[in-house]
Amino acid sequence: TVVQLFKEIFKASLELQEDDHRKALLVSRKNKAEDTVVTIKGEKVGAGDLTHVFGPCAVESYEQVKEVAQAVKKQGGKLLRGGAYKPRTSPYDFQGLGLEGLKILKQVADEEGMAVISEIVNPADIETAVDYIDVIQIGARNMQNFELLKAAGSVKKPVLLKRGMSATISEFINAAEYIISRGNDQIILCERGIRTYEKATRNTLDISAVPILKQETHLPVMVDVTHSTGRRDLLLPTAKAAIAIGADGIMAEVHPDPAVALSDSAQQMDIPTFEKFIEEINKQQPVKA
Amino acid sequence: TVVQLFKEIFKASLELQEDDHRKALLVSRKNKAEDTVVTIKGEKVGAGDLTHVFGPCAVESYEQVKEVAQAVKKQGGKLLRGGAYKPRTSPYDFQGLGLEGLKILKQVADEEGMAVISEIVNPADIETAVDYIDVIQIGARNMQNFELLKAAGSVKKPVLLKRGMSATISEFINAAEYIISRGNDQIILCERGIRTYEKATRNTLDISAVPILKQETHLPVMVDVTHSTGRRDLLLPTAKAAIAIGADGIMAEVHPDPAVALSDSAQQMDIPTFEKFIEEINKQQPVKA
Amino acid sequence: TVVQLFKEIFKASLELQEDDHRKALLVSRKNKAEDTVVTIKGEKVGAGDLTHVFGPCAVESYEQVKEVAQAVKKQGGKLLRGGAYKPRTSPYDFQGLGLEGLKILKQVADEEGMAVISEIVNPADIETAVDYIDVIQIGARNMQNFELLKAAGSVKKPVLLKRGMSATISEFINAAEYIISRGNDQIILCERGIRTYEKATRNTLDISAVPILKQETHLPVMVDVTHSTGRRDLLLPTAKAAIAIGADGIMAEVHPDPAVALSDSAQQMDIPTFEKFIEEINKQQPVKA
Amino acid sequence: TVVQLFKEIFKASLELQEDDHRKALLVSRKNKAEDTVVTIKGEKVGAGDLTHVFGPCAVESYEQVKEVAQAVKKQGGKLLRGGAYKPRTSPYDFQGLGLEGLKILKQVADEEGMAVISEIVNPADIETAVDYIDVIQIGARNMQNFELLKAAGSVKKPVLLKRGMSATISEFINAAEYIISRGNDQIILCERGIRTYEKATRNTLDISAVPILKQETHLPVMVDVTHSTGRRDLLLPTAKAAIAIGADGIMAEVHPDPAVALSDSAQQMDIPTFEKFIEEINKQQPVKA
Repeated sequence: TVVQLFKEIFKASLELQEDDHRKALLVSRKNKAEDTVVTIKGEKVGAGDLTHVFGPCAVESYEQVKEVAQAVKKQGGKLLRGGAYKPRTSPYDFQGLGLEGLKILKQVADEEGMAVISEIVNPADIETAVDYIDVIQIGARNMQNFELLKAAGSVKKPVLLKRGMSATISEFINAAEYIISRGNDQIILCERGIRTYEKATRNTLDISAVPILKQETHLPVMVDVTHSTGRRDLLLPTAKAAIAIGADGIMAEVHPDPAVALSDSAQQMDIPTFEKFIEEINKQQPVKA
Repeated sequence: TVVQLFKEIFKASLELQEDDHRKALLVSRKNKAEDTVVTIKGEKVGAGDLTHVFGPCAVESYEQVKEVAQAVKKQGGKLLRGGAYKPRTSPYDFQGLGLEGLKILKQVADEEGMAVISEIVNPADIETAVDYIDVIQIGARNMQNFELLKAAGSVKKPVLLKRGMSATISEFINAAEYIISRGNDQIILCERGIRTYEKATRNTLDISAVPILKQETHLPVMVDVTHSTGRRDLLLPTAKAAIAIGADGIMAEVHPDPAVALSDSAQQMDIPTFEKFIEEINKQQPVKA
Repeated sequence: TVVQLFKEIFKASLELQEDDHRKALLVSRKNKAEDTVVTIKGEKVGAGDLTHVFGPCAVESYEQVKEVAQAVKKQGGKLLRGGAYKPRTSPYDFQGLGLEGLKILKQVADEEGMAVISEIVNPADIETAVDYIDVIQIGARNMQNFELLKAAGSVKKPVLLKRGMSATISEFINAAEYIISRGNDQIILCERGIRTYEKATRNTLDISAVPILKQETHLPVMVDVTHSTGRRDLLLPTAKAAIAIGADGIMAEVHPDPAVALSDSAQQMDIPTFEKFIEEINKQQPVKA
Repeated sequence: TVVQLFKEIFKASLELQEDDHRKALLVSRKNKAEDTVVTIKGEKVGAGDLTHVFGPCAVESYEQVKEVAQAVKKQGGKLLRGGAYKPRTSPYDFQGLGLEGLKILKQVADEEGMAVISEIVNPADIETAVDYIDVIQIGARNMQNFELLKAAGSVKKPVLLKRGMSATISEFINAAEYIISRGNDQIILCERGIRTYEKATRNTLDISAVPILKQETHLPVMVDVTHSTGRRDLLLPTAKAAIAIGADGIMAEVHPDPAVALSDSAQQMDIPTFEKFIEEINKQQPVKA
């Protein structure tokens, strides 16, 4: 009928406009068709090969970081993560070593020739942090801490931006836009599970977010299998799924002795488990777009 | 206090019993360690090779089903799906051809040497339906329609049980237990996405449910990529993820001309798209447990 | 700008059409402006006064039902609930007394001059059930069991339709439309909480659904405070909120001895608690539309 | 087995400790039985009478704030809200007037003898902000911005803490603990809806959070009806429900001309609507605990 035809035209016009809006975003693939490659001390993320990030949940001591770093390096890994400023639900939980933690990370990174990624939680810390770390991580709880996003956008350091606990994909993309709009396009997006009613896993890994983000933006996309599942037994299967669906890399937590870890002890891999994990995922080829 | 301590011990004992209870479930891997293989007209689901299910959302005509069946068969597929009884949100939407639809499915299946899967929505229809179809599908909206589960458990036909729209994994497993407890162990579980706040996809594919279900039960697990995503552009990437994580097969909708489909037109593949889809997923090897 | 103006016109046209569609629904207030009053053995639901429904979760014995009925009657209540067919997550949990339960309900109702409400779960049981009960309850798990809705729509008995566990308001309205489209307009809608990530309560009471349903439809709306909270300590406060927001009545579970109840023992009120509950809510006036 | 039994006893002991831990929380009612009263320029929140907060979403100009302030004052209101730092999903949306906005608020507050509440988003701004505003608001997106919480806990100003978009009640309580643990116990909790699958409202008002928070903590609890519903037609009914369930006050947005508001135009009340709103809710008595 004519009415329906009009309806279709209306709908198409609306979509066109929305489309234009999305095109205007600097992170949008419509704005820039080629993949952005984030370069971290020579390591290229998003260039076709898989690049993973491993390390302990929290930096606890030089020895702990060193041991993990060596294990990661032995498997060919260049990117080391470790939390110095830990956002914790309770004020009475271990809050991280702070600047001391960043210094440990830097020392190990220098000794091992690796790059380090660490979460920053206060805009005021960004300027100091860039002297110690190679990638600024913005955690899930801070995905809409816009002051922090602006601060991270104003420095010349790659940023790993995690999806918020209950952020829509559209909000996630807009959070990245806060960073790029300040002049920093070295952004890695990281899917880490969303909060749902299902409690068999810590969060629900939204695996289809990966191809959507790759389609809508030109940024590399990683998957944090540790926080999305919260279960050691699911790290390997979800990592395989993430690689198969086109992720540019995996993030997972490794600790020399998870049982005594100061945080997240139930979900970190010990070193032998990690070695088996890496061996398994190395069998998989990255997906060519 | 001592009282509290006792209370806690009681609670612990209760949990212990629950554990035992779970062990007692007939679908539980603790109860039976080996994988259950579901045999459908000689086709084995859960035996190590991938077995997929394709077909139109709804049976619309003999010609439509025939065309899809031939396309599926050409790609080596043996299992054909098609909805005859369609559960629709509005009473004014197309409700399916009913028994007429089952007859069309049976005719095509006989001609092509294929097996057919169709959803049954009324316990009273189960007895008639088994004369026409090879697998009874229980849809997401009926996962806790316990009368239907009991009826399906009382016949000698394989059942494909879909996860409810907001069912926990534990509720899903218990729904399967309703079927097996009546004597029918030929059950295929099917993850089809869960309802979350995220609206970029029709549902959120809970990919980690696959390894959990494989661990907790001895039943084969499929992934319905059509309903979990609701987006044609995500069918292939999510199918790859599902296979990589260990699914026993993929379910997806194929229609000769999706634009004129009487239901779900936005998410069905046309035949050329389907051929490309199958070619791509055939490159992947099933995951060995 | 002209573009924006066009956009607004487009949007308005779309909304107009959606509006028309909604107007066409038989349950819609656009279709019928006056409130529907559901009459149950002379008791009027939706006529301005509050009408509550109390009773045990499950019918366990004549004595149990009798005791609760007398307590409810003493407080002026006319509507008694009790489950005879119990949909339970596990097949090994108490499934209800079935027809025997309906007979107990009828006997008590006859003796006390009350009306009874009980859940029916199989379309095949509807015809028999109408001889025993005064209101057919369709439970949350069956809100989209369309065969059951059609069967309930085909008899001349009031229906109390509960919102599905994760049903949208729009799906809820469409489920009622299945009933009314078969000729039965004696429908009470019942909000009973929705499934969310929050686990402090069994479900999350979606209190704003009440005014939305009153606005969009002409049907009476009740609130089940027992299943929405799952906590005895929240029954009274949520009942007060439900009345204040305009609900036509409250549904809550009462048991002579909740600790030994065969189901839902943690959330039923014992009789003294019930008496205090009713005394408190009787202080509140119904909201005039 | 014995091993399992031991394991369970350990687990029980852990839970016991957690319980103790909760008891130990400074915000917990177990720690302090009496209600905390927050005093804002002589206005007492949580002392038994209802205290509401009204004002525009964003401070746009002196005239706009002045007009709303006078309307609020005319109705007996003392607490005025207005956003100067606006957290917005897109970096290209109006970000608020910043310090300029705080100055406008202060000027109006001084002229009208009112107290002002405004959101602060950067820990670095807290010290300056306290010179201009009477209550620091921590918004939903920053509920787990722990650096901001610590900063707010370190000053001598009341804090209005909003529940995070998908925060559990337990996380909300712990966020308040961050503030009180730094020495500031003048905290008002504010329920503002949680993110769920239901899209008929902007968020789902979790009304039962109010009695839970009143039970678990000694802090006053308000309900933001604007952000929980996102619909002007639901402001009044949800406010009534909130008061009936025991909230200490309502927060809602008022704008002289919502249609031209720079943010949230669809959900703010204009002044005549506000006057009718306040007249209606003034009929309700606060709930005595």
